[in-house]
Amino acid sequence: MSAAVYPKVTLPSHVQTILITGAGGFVGQQLLISLSESFPNINFIITDVRAPSIPASIDQFKQRIASLGADLSNKDEVKNLFEGRQIDAIYAVHGIMSGGSEANFDLGYQVNVDSHTALLAATRAHHIQARQGSPLPLYVYVSGLAVYGGEKCIPEAEIEPETTPLFPETSYGTAKAICELYVFDYTRKGFIDGRIIRLPTVAIRSGAPSSAASSFISGLIREPLQGQRSECPVADSIDDPNLDNFPLYLSRVSTVIHNFIHVLSLPASAFPSYSRTVNFPGITVTTRDIIEALAVVGGSEALNLIDFKKDPKVLSIMAFWPGSFNQQAALSLGFIRDDPKTGFLDAVRDFQAELKRGQ
Amino acid sequence: MSAAVYPKVTLPSHVQTILITGAGGFVGQQLLISLSESFPNINFIITDVRAPSIPASIDQFKQRIASLGADLSNKDEVKNLFEGRQIDAIYAVHGIMSGGSEANFDLGYQVNVDSHTALLAATRAHHIQARQGSPLPLYVYVSGLAVYGGEKCIPEAEIEPETTPLFPETSYGTAKAICELYVFDYTRKGFIDGRIIRLPTVAIRSGAPSSAASSFISGLIREPLQGQRSECPVADSIDDPNLDNFPLYLSRVSTVIHNFIHVLSLPASAFPSYSRTVNFPGITVTTRDIIEALAVVGGSEALNLIDFKKDPKVLSIMAFWPGSFNQQAALSLGFIRDDPKTGFLDAVRDFQAELKRGQ
Repeated sequence: MSAAVYPKVTLPSHVQTILITGAGGFVGQQLLISLSESFPNINFIITDVRAPSIPASIDQFKQRIASLGADLSNKDEVKNLFEGRQIDAIYAVHGIMSGGSEANFDLGYQVNVDSHTALLAATRAHHIQARQGSPLPLYVYVSGLAVYGGEKCIPEAEIEPETTPLFPETSYGTAKAICELYVFDYTRKGFIDGRIIRLPTVAIRSGAPSSAASSFISGLIREPLQGQRSECPVADSIDDPNLDNFPLYLSRVSTVIHNFIHVLSLPASAFPSYSRTVNFPGITVTTRDIIEALAVVGGSEALNLIDFKKDPKVLSIMAFWPGSFNQQAALSLGFIRDDPKTGFLDAVRDFQAELKRGQ
Repeated sequence: MSAAVYPKVTLPSHVQTILITGAGGFVGQQLLISLSESFPNINFIITDVRAPSIPASIDQFKQRIASLGADLSNKDEVKNLFEGRQIDAIYAVHGIMSGGSEANFDLGYQVNVDSHTALLAATRAHHIQARQGSPLPLYVYVSGLAVYGGEKCIPEAEIEPETTPLFPETSYGTAKAICELYVFDYTRKGFIDGRIIRLPTVAIRSGAPSSAASSFISGLIREPLQGQRSECPVADSIDDPNLDNFPLYLSRVSTVIHNFIHVLSLPASAFPSYSRTVNFPGITVTTRDIIEALAVVGGSEALNLIDFKKDPKVLSIMAFWPGSFNQQAALSLGFIRDDPKTGFLDAVRDFQAELKRGQ
């Protein structure tokens, strides 16, 4: 068992400083680890509501990393991130998750839209003030499959992005769709060089469970492998056909992070004139696949830590999760897809290895 | 020759006061005329940057009409519109047109998005403060076909709204798409009862030419029928095949206004759970059809007032205008479509009659 091997990514040579927002979160931290390890000449500004910690595994790179606490819904604090710096690329990863933005409408839009338009405006102003002839700032906006909705979104569906209008049915997904529009228009106007990435579920997330309905997907692995109980909201027993009936579309953490970096390496000409959006590839698994992977890695001891208990609320949300998305466009741009057969087990083994390193 | 006859519309009985923004513009004025004539028990708040005038033809209704000047990008001025009133329905018609919002990015978004989110927030707050059990405020957001773009948008296309993602390629269209998302989410959350209408080109617009590329469509009729010269940017002569090659999708003013009122009469249950958007029906004509209609109504005298002079800029925009949109959804909801054969000539005759009344 060894870590995944991905193609080497070469970033544009002008990228010397990268800003990562939401860098205290799981994805932000993984992205920072991978970027700082792979690109020894790049400096980082990382920010979150509180100054994000620098993971122990990259402590040796801390001189290349400036960690800043900032409230991005305050325009002055957004501007301050750029003050006295030349920032060449931005990963806009911050946001309030679906549960939180559904519970607090105003705060959700303040963070998930207004702080992003403030960041876009500050990036535009930063480029105007930059030395003449500077390349446009690369700007990666992190969207997700929550932009989809409507009658096409059912477990049996394979969504065709080219023929599927967006009908978000949460404030979280609505805000993502709104920001996608802004990022494209800033790009079209020549203010930034934007790229919009839509993530599948990321597995296995370490850390605490989140309010997202999909939280159990990582939870069914994460908690039992650490000797803790975990609830399976999909089924009442291991014989429940629900375990086979709700497909889950996801990607291994290391693959998502590789694709995050790959998108920065693409020339603007890789995209059509009317869109900068790419749906990251994913694989489709069932809850039974998850449980079987847990059994392979953790044995019956881990398996016995699962409490089967249907949650009608989670199931009602899952009834509108498409099982699959056509990923031809992403694959032709060089994005990586996990092995459909072994991908989830690989993700579980990654997590197990991470646990061992942490001991 | 008589005015068009449309089915009688019955509005919900609780609608006693209607707010119209952008009421100084052509569509806002026509809407006010039609509503005030058809509904003698309804009161109106009309607003624009300057307090809109009340058209002479409805001077007898002026006691039912409060005209207010307001800068809707100022949240306090938005709130003031509701102060001390009970407003039951809102037509959000205001905005900066495509030319203006393309020329001034920040002002465009300030007016075409920020003032609309301020109006939505004020409407939500207004309902919270209303007497218990009040029906949700009806909220009609005026969008347009500028939300479409991308490779499907060519003159030969018939756009299928159900399978066509939005790829706006102007800041104007982007702002429309953003506001559509907000209006739907406010509706989904139960803050308003929203309806989103996408207009085709409206013909014949009276008043001054606008900066829109489509301005010539009304201009080819409006100016010559008043003895003034008008430029045809599509062709270099009356024999130019361009006159037949660029289909134009439009609707007669009176039909658009009827449909504006009809949308207020529909129950919320007429819409699917995931969308409140309807593309208004239209008919497809060519520039030659326009010129022939001018000849029928104005004779060779009017025809001789057209200066044929290709404008490559206008033609490059027209190359991405879809010739037609599937309108089955709108027709099944009871929206009216002009007669495909006589509709444009009817629109020209409407305009001629308006000129005669004005003399």
